[in-house]
Amino acid sequence: MLKSTIAAMTLACAAVGGAQAQGLSQTASALSEKALTDKTAWNVVESLTTEIGPRPVGSPAMERAKDWGLAKLKELGFENVHAEPFTTPAWSRGAESAEVVGPYPQPLHILGLGNSSPTPPGGLTAEIALFPTYRALLAQPPGSLTGKIAVVTEKMTRTQVGSGYGGINPNRTAGPLEAKKRGAVGYLTRSLSTDDTRLPHTGGSAPAGIPAAALSTPDAELLEHMVARGKPVTVRLNMASSSNPAAQAWNVVGEIRGREAPDEVIVIGGHLDSWDPGTGAFDDGAGIAITTAAAKLAGAQPPRRTIRVVMFGSEEQGGSSGAYLAAHKDEVGKMIVTGESDEGPGPIWTLNLPKGSADHPAMGAFLTAIGPLKVIVDRNPSSRGGADIQGLMAAGVPLIDLIPDANRYFDLHHSADDTLDKIDPADLAQSTAVWTAFLYTVANSDIDFRKLAAAAPATPTR
Amino acid sequence: MLKSTIAAMTLACAAVGGAQAQGLSQTASALSEKALTDKTAWNVVESLTTEIGPRPVGSPAMERAKDWGLAKLKELGFENVHAEPFTTPAWSRGAESAEVVGPYPQPLHILGLGNSSPTPPGGLTAEIALFPTYRALLAQPPGSLTGKIAVVTEKMTRTQVGSGYGGINPNRTAGPLEAKKRGAVGYLTRSLSTDDTRLPHTGGSAPAGIPAAALSTPDAELLEHMVARGKPVTVRLNMASSSNPAAQAWNVVGEIRGREAPDEVIVIGGHLDSWDPGTGAFDDGAGIAITTAAAKLAGAQPPRRTIRVVMFGSEEQGGSSGAYLAAHKDEVGKMIVTGESDEGPGPIWTLNLPKGSADHPAMGAFLTAIGPLKVIVDRNPSSRGGADIQGLMAAGVPLIDLIPDANRYFDLHHSADDTLDKIDPADLAQSTAVWTAFLYTVANSDIDFRKLAAAAPATPTR
Repeated sequence: MLKSTIAAMTLACAAVGGAQAQGLSQTASALSEKALTDKTAWNVVESLTTEIGPRPVGSPAMERAKDWGLAKLKELGFENVHAEPFTTPAWSRGAESAEVVGPYPQPLHILGLGNSSPTPPGGLTAEIALFPTYRALLAQPPGSLTGKIAVVTEKMTRTQVGSGYGGINPNRTAGPLEAKKRGAVGYLTRSLSTDDTRLPHTGGSAPAGIPAAALSTPDAELLEHMVARGKPVTVRLNMASSSNPAAQAWNVVGEIRGREAPDEVIVIGGHLDSWDPGTGAFDDGAGIAITTAAAKLAGAQPPRRTIRVVMFGSEEQGGSSGAYLAAHKDEVGKMIVTGESDEGPGPIWTLNLPKGSADHPAMGAFLTAIGPLKVIVDRNPSSRGGADIQGLMAAGVPLIDLIPDANRYFDLHHSADDTLDKIDPADLAQSTAVWTAFLYTVANSDIDFRKLAAAAPATPTR
Repeated sequence: MLKSTIAAMTLACAAVGGAQAQGLSQTASALSEKALTDKTAWNVVESLTTEIGPRPVGSPAMERAKDWGLAKLKELGFENVHAEPFTTPAWSRGAESAEVVGPYPQPLHILGLGNSSPTPPGGLTAEIALFPTYRALLAQPPGSLTGKIAVVTEKMTRTQVGSGYGGINPNRTAGPLEAKKRGAVGYLTRSLSTDDTRLPHTGGSAPAGIPAAALSTPDAELLEHMVARGKPVTVRLNMASSSNPAAQAWNVVGEIRGREAPDEVIVIGGHLDSWDPGTGAFDDGAGIAITTAAAKLAGAQPPRRTIRVVMFGSEEQGGSSGAYLAAHKDEVGKMIVTGESDEGPGPIWTLNLPKGSADHPAMGAFLTAIGPLKVIVDRNPSSRGGADIQGLMAAGVPLIDLIPDANRYFDLHHSADDTLDKIDPADLAQSTAVWTAFLYTVANSDIDFRKLAAAAPATPTR
């Protein structure tokens, strides 16, 4: 193993000499410092949230967002700016309301989940069956929830890395199906959220053929207080929605073309679509802003390789990743690295490099440049990625993980609270600075992550 | 001045001797300590928010709240439990929505202000005229806003004492009228709030004959971002509402009757009605809970004087104070002191005693008892009170001000976010402990605040 590491190092040093690495690092450092005061990222997310706002796939707003993306990339000097069309299923919310009918009548704050069925005309009124954990729901036998609205009130945990969301994700995505299997006629989940506001958080769910919605966290607790009194609690849901099996969507693309190796492409981006309640600032206007601004800063002088920014067109309801891979399958072998910014405006607090690349001088130049930005280098190789680049990752494109602090992300995510005012411009600038340094060093070296990975020892374990 | 202070001290000491004051203080201290672990206040506000929820005056929920109040006071052992009916004008919200029509179409989150007019059928669509301060609106000449929706986006300041609300209050209460005077056809104000959620905060306004609503704070900032682009911004409002000129309301009353001087009455309380979006936990379930629990704790052994708890029935839209005074005008001369808890669950961080009472042994006993609770004694006499006791105050009833920390109050006040989960049980218990000690010492002494005030030197200035 030591031998292969040395071999990799030797290869790397042959490609990027010490003096060259030092030059890379100095310029990356200067660009990174510039990014800390540059206003491009802020201006991009301010523009998107102000001029477009909510932009669910299949909506007129998403078509306007596509036009916005094309215009913004051209305005910023990107080349080869174009939209790559595809179609994807799209669910759209209609009017929604919910209330406790008895014994303690009062309104509830809900937000339908993606792929929820509408309620029958006049609404759905049923007794609830409340479970404090999803596991408790799964433990119910078939038929045990017949005629009831199943309610899961499990609380999400706040973590820096956002792992609380992954842990509880099936409560939303699979909950409606599991409730239906047991006979339930409706499903409510406590929002997958760490906030305490009365705003519910939506998100996708597997189609289950029953109405399914998220409760705000105070509403989930309100139902717990009611149920604790021991009397049957009855809830009425009124939910409208529609589905389009083949909505028009677009991945919007712009490039800084490489001057020496233009077909060696770095593919980065975020997603342009958003859920409907907020203005998509954290999710994912920030990612669009960070990657667009970083590409512009890193490519201010024409780089060796091409930097491509993709504004993916259907992350929330799926479709971007497959469409992008299908359109670029002949090109993936030449893609140098990919990365997505889809966990908010940062700051970036840790990162995972592609396997075997940590000791390469180009990565040394990158890490030296971002020294002042206080990012922990995780010794495990990158593996996380984002939903829009799952296709590229599966096709073998090397991955960079630049991971923002997610402590606040799930206070806002998929709710009406996802708005511009929540973004700290300093955090956005720090994230942009990290991405800028990474893009500059990779685009101006000939680092080959595939070769480094092949030559690397087995992944170290923690 | 010195002479009159000494005279007051002498009077006071004649009434409550040193040993008696020590006994008062010891029992008050023990009761106050008991209040810190007693669950009554929590149980009261949990019950009200869970079983009743939103309870605007004139609604069926408010009638249920009246029945709840009567039952709760009886359950807790209060005597002379009854409802005192009165009628008052009541405004009720209907369906509401708002959106930017152009140039950047997207929804806005609003909440109609009390006494807002409905929009015409089909809604009201008009260009906005945005003012960053209320003062800037007032500077506009008559006719200058003809046909426009006036928007004021002034930001409220967070303060411990809640003074940021008072400072900006006319933006909501008088803004619609001032906009109308200048020709406006509609009025929007940034919520009088210190939060950053997408939930607007309602509240009363003087009837102006135009639709008037609060924007959530992110929506106010969104409009600022739009207007900064220099193009006319057009907004559509759809707002329904109705008004009842004489809605039925009730002040709900319960007493701990005094054993020696039952007609010497201490009148305390909070208000039972709430605005409609939240469950009225901070405003004012907490006040109901604190005063009810404190009266019960302080009156566990029959006190000398009567402690009366009033759950006022129409604070938010007015009426309670006048109705209570009118029903008790023959009794006000014998009321010992009054106080209202209507600024949230606490903790109580400062207090103002009735004029001239600071050196009285009974107040010394009270202040000694609450020593562990860390309350700053302001040297200015009480003057603040609450909306429901303005009538009593004007009629000369002495006042106690026990002032809770208001830092978080205006994040929640009058919004859907005013829910039980926001109450810290420890803060609620601390507030209850302070009220308990005050009620116990006053109810078991013969302190005469009117005499002390008459004998007191002029009010010290800071």
